[in-house]
Amino acid sequence: MPVFTEESSPEMLQRAAGLREPPLPRVSAPAPVNEDRTTEGSKHEVVIIGTGPAGIMLSLMLTRYGVSNLPVEKVTSMIIPGQADGLQPRTLEVLRQLGLSEEIFSQGFPNHRIAFWNPGKPGEPRLVRTAVADDVTVPSRYPHKILLAAGRVVNILERQMNKYGNEVERGTEFVSFEFVGGEFPVKVTLKDVVTGRVYSVFAKHLVGADGAHSKVREQIGAKLQGESTDYIWGVVDAVLKTDFPDIRKRCAIHSDAASIMAIPREKIENQQYMTRLYTQLEENVDATSTVSGSAVGEEEAKKRARERRARVTLPRILDQVKRTMEPFNVEVVKVDWWAAYQIGQRVATKFALKDAQGTDRVFIMGDACHTHSPKAGQGMNVSMMDGYNLGWKLAYELLGLAPAGSLLPTYEFERKDIAQQLIDFDNAFASKFSQKMAGPEEGGLTHEEFFKVFHTGGGFTSGCGIEYQQSNLVTKNRVKGLNEALNPDLGLLRAGRRLINVPVRRFSDDAPCDLHDVLPLNGNYVVLVVLPQNFKEEKLQQKLAYLTSSLPRKFVRGVVQPYVVHPLKSNDDVEWSDFPKALKEDFEWNFLGDVTGQAYKTWGVSKEHGVCGVLRPDGVFGGVWDLEELVPKGAVESYLTANLTQPSTKSFL
Amino acid sequence: MPVFTEESSPEMLQRAAGLREPPLPRVSAPAPVNEDRTTEGSKHEVVIIGTGPAGIMLSLMLTRYGVSNLPVEKVTSMIIPGQADGLQPRTLEVLRQLGLSEEIFSQGFPNHRIAFWNPGKPGEPRLVRTAVADDVTVPSRYPHKILLAAGRVVNILERQMNKYGNEVERGTEFVSFEFVGGEFPVKVTLKDVVTGRVYSVFAKHLVGADGAHSKVREQIGAKLQGESTDYIWGVVDAVLKTDFPDIRKRCAIHSDAASIMAIPREKIENQQYMTRLYTQLEENVDATSTVSGSAVGEEEAKKRARERRARVTLPRILDQVKRTMEPFNVEVVKVDWWAAYQIGQRVATKFALKDAQGTDRVFIMGDACHTHSPKAGQGMNVSMMDGYNLGWKLAYELLGLAPAGSLLPTYEFERKDIAQQLIDFDNAFASKFSQKMAGPEEGGLTHEEFFKVFHTGGGFTSGCGIEYQQSNLVTKNRVKGLNEALNPDLGLLRAGRRLINVPVRRFSDDAPCDLHDVLPLNGNYVVLVVLPQNFKEEKLQQKLAYLTSSLPRKFVRGVVQPYVVHPLKSNDDVEWSDFPKALKEDFEWNFLGDVTGQAYKTWGVSKEHGVCGVLRPDGVFGGVWDLEELVPKGAVESYLTANLTQPSTKSFL
Ligand SMILES: Cc1cc2nc3c(=O)[nH]c(=O)nc-3n(C[C@H](O)[C@H](O)[C@H](O)COP(=O)(O)OP(=O)(O)OC[C@H]3O[C@@H](n4cnc5c(N)ncnc54)[C@H](O)[C@@H]3O)c2cc1C
Ligand SMILES: Cc1cc2nc3c(=O)[nH]c(=O)nc-3n(C[C@H](O)[C@H](O)[C@H](O)COP(=O)(O)OP(=O)(O)OC[C@H]3O[C@@H](n4cnc5c(N)ncnc54)[C@H](O)[C@@H]3O)c2cc1C
Repeated sequence: MPVFTEESSPEMLQRAAGLREPPLPRVSAPAPVNEDRTTEGSKHEVVIIGTGPAGIMLSLMLTRYGVSNLPVEKVTSMIIPGQADGLQPRTLEVLRQLGLSEEIFSQGFPNHRIAFWNPGKPGEPRLVRTAVADDVTVPSRYPHKILLAAGRVVNILERQMNKYGNEVERGTEFVSFEFVGGEFPVKVTLKDVVTGRVYSVFAKHLVGADGAHSKVREQIGAKLQGESTDYIWGVVDAVLKTDFPDIRKRCAIHSDAASIMAIPREKIENQQYMTRLYTQLEENVDATSTVSGSAVGEEEAKKRARERRARVTLPRILDQVKRTMEPFNVEVVKVDWWAAYQIGQRVATKFALKDAQGTDRVFIMGDACHTHSPKAGQGMNVSMMDGYNLGWKLAYELLGLAPAGSLLPTYEFERKDIAQQLIDFDNAFASKFSQKMAGPEEGGLTHEEFFKVFHTGGGFTSGCGIEYQQSNLVTKNRVKGLNEALNPDLGLLRAGRRLINVPVRRFSDDAPCDLHDVLPLNGNYVVLVVLPQNFKEEKLQQKLAYLTSSLPRKFVRGVVQPYVVHPLKSNDDVEWSDFPKALKEDFEWNFLGDVTGQAYKTWGVSKEHGVCGVLRPDGVFGGVWDLEELVPKGAVESYLTANLTQPSTKSFL
Repeated sequence: MPVFTEESSPEMLQRAAGLREPPLPRVSAPAPVNEDRTTEGSKHEVVIIGTGPAGIMLSLMLTRYGVSNLPVEKVTSMIIPGQADGLQPRTLEVLRQLGLSEEIFSQGFPNHRIAFWNPGKPGEPRLVRTAVADDVTVPSRYPHKILLAAGRVVNILERQMNKYGNEVERGTEFVSFEFVGGEFPVKVTLKDVVTGRVYSVFAKHLVGADGAHSKVREQIGAKLQGESTDYIWGVVDAVLKTDFPDIRKRCAIHSDAASIMAIPREKIENQQYMTRLYTQLEENVDATSTVSGSAVGEEEAKKRARERRARVTLPRILDQVKRTMEPFNVEVVKVDWWAAYQIGQRVATKFALKDAQGTDRVFIMGDACHTHSPKAGQGMNVSMMDGYNLGWKLAYELLGLAPAGSLLPTYEFERKDIAQQLIDFDNAFASKFSQKMAGPEEGGLTHEEFFKVFHTGGGFTSGCGIEYQQSNLVTKNRVKGLNEALNPDLGLLRAGRRLINVPVRRFSDDAPCDLHDVLPLNGNYVVLVVLPQNFKEEKLQQKLAYLTSSLPRKFVRGVVQPYVVHPLKSNDDVEWSDFPKALKEDFEWNFLGDVTGQAYKTWGVSKEHGVCGVLRPDGVFGGVWDLEELVPKGAVESYLTANLTQPSTKSFL
């Protein structure tokens, strides 16, 4: 098109190269700048050991938020052959809010349904389908899992991190750390695994995301506690040719030969889909064979376990699979990966170590603090969510946005509780899974018993039912405006739980959208005002002006963002002029209509009272309060003031 | 998790680094390999001039399909400050099927609604809202536009192309071409704009996607034909502060001062959203001032046009905007880009040039073959879709998948018709837009007239109502199994139109999904079998066996993929054993249930008869036939045989 005059701003060109979400504001001293990140004496706000799911998620969050961090990984190749393969609904919600879902959704396999196969009664075929059920039993934006090799998932996160300007230092092994005081008090000794060069860097915080054999865990003096027996399992990823009808559903198959968990996986080639098969191979072994610190019989236990492990081979796993699935025919077209592993349920005694001044300086995350069986598909998820929980807390601490030291202790407080729940669930589920199925008269496990364990764990395993306990970050109290009789797993607004997604219609452009898409995870707190029906009344308008104008201005610019939801059936029933000016002027984008009525209903909010909640940067409610308590200087302001710094010079908008 | 034995296939590691869709199979000679792509004499299957929306789309498609191509761009910087900003629903469907929607959706602005503002009647305010309507008036997977700077869109496509292993040669200008015969008969002379070096490369085909001033167009001897007047317009991208309530909707504002088209745009910073404003500034100018080839008065016309253009400045545009939007207050916070341009409606006389042997060797696409006003938001879309249409045809020709020369003539045949429709629509719309609004008594344009033009163009402007005419690639015929009385814009299956998306439930895993997601754009043809209710009958089962087993095997492996839809209310009402074995064995993934009933209804398919359609690689129906016509060797096979090569050695599966 013939343009004869044209002028553009310099930023326009930059933006075209790739819009990135802005970092959080920094109130603290600038991040250290190193010519070379791995020379002796270089300084980093955070050093992260290991870039499995936990480490890469933490590094991505810190990088997006603008915190200098050095992720190191001892493996030299780009890719770690991933073992995990299941992304749970809550993890998917987070990945979506980070703008990572498309690659994951289109390359992974969405698993919606689970089928249960059990031995037929006399006269029936050897294997019969007892039930088919939804795999995810609680409401969620994505009511399914996505199955995709962990290596691929980690790679997708790493490439977003690269886009934000950070890189993994590969071939770099953690050796040891010590506290040395000063501004960067953690001296971390690293080793270049290719050249053998050993050197030290200095950090404000060190995080061990170094997996089940974590050296960082060892050095902070944490022990693994829990069950004393381990299970020996085999797992195969293969392309199958089979007449088993449910091979594209998740299947719990109990035959009289053995038990299999079959998991449908992503396409690896045109028309070739993978299946993952788990099967238990040996009786349980004494955990002393892998856990250090036990005394008597350790040698003998180790020897016996070694013998058992040596018996595990690919042909034996495949043979057991075939026998279990008879009378169906299972041909293996191609084996992509197989492994044998030995696992128990254990949690680390501590997740963090303080320095002499009482500041949490070293943390462990992921498999470094909890080990458990893979059958409930939790490891990658809980590990990533550990990193997700720690990420914003470290960022607020280091950027000077939170009172010094106030947030860090909540990491262990919140995540250890989750780890313990995980281990308890896994214990119940894995042991049930290993049991032989039988009719009740025979005294074995019934399908009903198994199904019950599966079903009641749904809130927890999906990640959607996770609830953090009371702390400075989570204020639990009674709320008149909420129907607290509702089952919170179904979406009730509740302190310590994530905000569930609902469809809304934005006011400014009258566009239908998902609430979660309106709330990208950019690290800010959200004040969510759910208006009562009588919002036009003067009293309410005053509250709204306070919440959308004077309150956010008390904190560092951009850190507190108000969002307002109205309960009317149509956006046409209301005008900008019905509201305080600040709403249009500063937060035009954040005003939403619950035109379908789903939000108030799902959230349990009464239209008579309305409520006001505060979402932490991880999308979890710090608290939910009645609107009446909010003027002047009510609960919301107390909560925010306790957890955020207030700048002396106001720099808002 | 303690793994004690582990083995993985080498491909597993590669996949983790980034799953890419496989290329199309190649039956022809291998692509030429060049040490350096830009040395004198290097060979390429396709050379593409210009990497705006049209060129980058073509290059991406060819690269994905496995065709060697050299895209060159005279601009040296990575980014072209994009002018277009609107992606239409059909373009969005295609971008989604290419796996590119998430970046575009999360960074762009989804525009759902359009508001019409007109002069108030006596006693009313100066400007009143006459109507608010849905911006997209036909059903589509995405019932809205996405607004995002073209530079950003092009960059997103380019980065996917990079992932598939191709790169744009920047700072490279097209000079000329000539036919020289031989295997690579097009000699293309290029110039390095930095060093001044001039050199020639050889291609099987040359494509000019070099914009409105196309040199390739000039050299194939095509002329632009159409209107003889040009409009002079100003356009500004700015962040505004305004009390105009509808600034986040698309607005057609006619005041007594002037007319404005206001378009809401993406966020460029925290809480800063852009708005694009178009306004006409001068009376129309004689097109001879820009179009060559006119005779009398050319000098004088040019002089006058030059004077008019010189009067267009940013302050004048902004002044006109402010006057038009009174009594609302409009403050400009920041101007991101502004331009003034002069435009008429013209189409090139030809889109392709044949060599002496009658083979189409040179093509032009995008603005090189059609120019028109930007107000209907078409340029970027029609240009990208030109590339999308040509891409698979060139690929089939060059990979040896189609009978030589059979597909290429359909490019001009199909796209010239679209270009003409575009120009006709734009002519009607732009001239209406420029007219002053008035009550009917005053003889001016009424809101109703304007709205009518807007509304009736909806099928075309959304891209969803595009219909290609009868050719070897599009067979139109009467179909008993279709309710052809339905408005085809609403989704009726129809030769020459795209397949509309519907929700389905896949059989193998009982997962709800979108049909478009089940059909990624990997370049294959699809045989879509929509079963009648009585599909279990022997006669139907025979047809199904033929369509899903013997028919696909007649062509190069993977090029014809059957998909089957059943009309039952639940997937539980049918078992694999009800169907031919080949369906589960070879196409397990492609069997879908219309459990909501929406597919048959939207498509107009009668459950009594069913139908069978063939989708070309661009998702457009080549034909739709009654199932009865299909055995033996019926219409579907004739269609495929005419358009596809049949390998002598069968290499299927
Ligand atoms: C067979 C199998 C199946 C599984 N299936 C599932 C599943 O379906 N779903 C699920 O959610 N989970 C599953 N898991 C568990 C899952 O793989 C783990 O829970 C998850 O990988 C833990 O993530 P992480 O980041 O904590 O640790 P890891 O993934 O173990 O990553 C630790 C990283 O640290 C590096 N490292 C270790 N020591 C050092 C050092 N000294 N210096 C530098 N780098 C170091 C390692 O090289 C490694 O890259 C499965 C595990 C196995 C073995
Ligand atoms: C102000 C304005 C607003 C617009 N708004 C919209 C809108 O909202 N929606 C919409 O869909 N469209 C809009 N358009 C139109 C849209 O920008 C064009 O239709 C679209 O860019 C055409 O794409 P293209 O690839 O055909 O050509 P172009 O985008 O013009 O790209 C041509 C490329 O070829 C290169 N080139 C030219 N000559 C040579 C040579 N000799 N050698 C090498 N390279 C060469 C150029 O550098 C350029 O990069 C607008 C246009 C303008 C001016």
